[in-house]
Amino acid sequence: MTLSSTPSPPYYAVIFTSLRTDDADGYGLTAERMMELAVEQEGFLGVDAARDPDGVGITVSYWRDLACIASWRKHGEHTAARNSGRQRWYRCFSLRVAKVERASEWAEGS
Amino acid sequence: MTLSSTPSPPYYAVIFTSLRTDDADGYGLTAERMMELAVEQEGFLGVDAARDPDGVGITVSYWRDLACIASWRKHGEHTAARNSGRQRWYRCFSLRVAKVERASEWAEGS
Repeated sequence: MTLSSTPSPPYYAVIFTSLRTDDADGYGLTAERMMELAVEQEGFLGVDAARDPDGVGITVSYWRDLACIASWRKHGEHTAARNSGRQRWYRCFSLRVAKVERASEWAEGS
Repeated sequence: MTLSSTPSPPYYAVIFTSLRTDDADGYGLTAERMMELAVEQEGFLGVDAARDPDGVGITVSYWRDLACIASWRKHGEHTAARNSGRQRWYRCFSLRVAKVERASEWAEGS
């Protein structure tokens, strides 16, 4: 388990926060597939994700620019997955697109 | 359990991603205290947090502007907590400051 390492700013972060329904059918596989696909997209820089046992999930993906984010948004499989998400897997979610202006990393012993 | 509701952009997000050590002593109380204090700060707009059972934690806090973020950073108790974090609770972390340009929310039945 590691954290995403990203290039120097500026770049973009897409912050997706969500609460799940109890319907887990197909969710895990689709989430894995979206991760696989995202990594292949133009301008993808990395992703960090956590789901708390109490139900809050946060996924932050990092992108070179807004055009790359728009292009990923239009991807057919991604669009279908988002529709399933609204119909079955999520009670609610928020999506924020933000320009990273400053970033720092720290590691034990560094 | 709910997600943070924030005003219309622009505003700022501070994205804190981390991996914990096995040392949990004092961590929970300090995390709770930091949450209590953050809520009282000028320009604080909200916070979402999740820690995955596999160890990745993500906390995203939302702020009116950079001055408010800088002021919270200088708060004495917060500075002390960050020092303890580096000494005891975190293996590594990343901090990103990002300007939220677009945001949307969705909820079941909405």
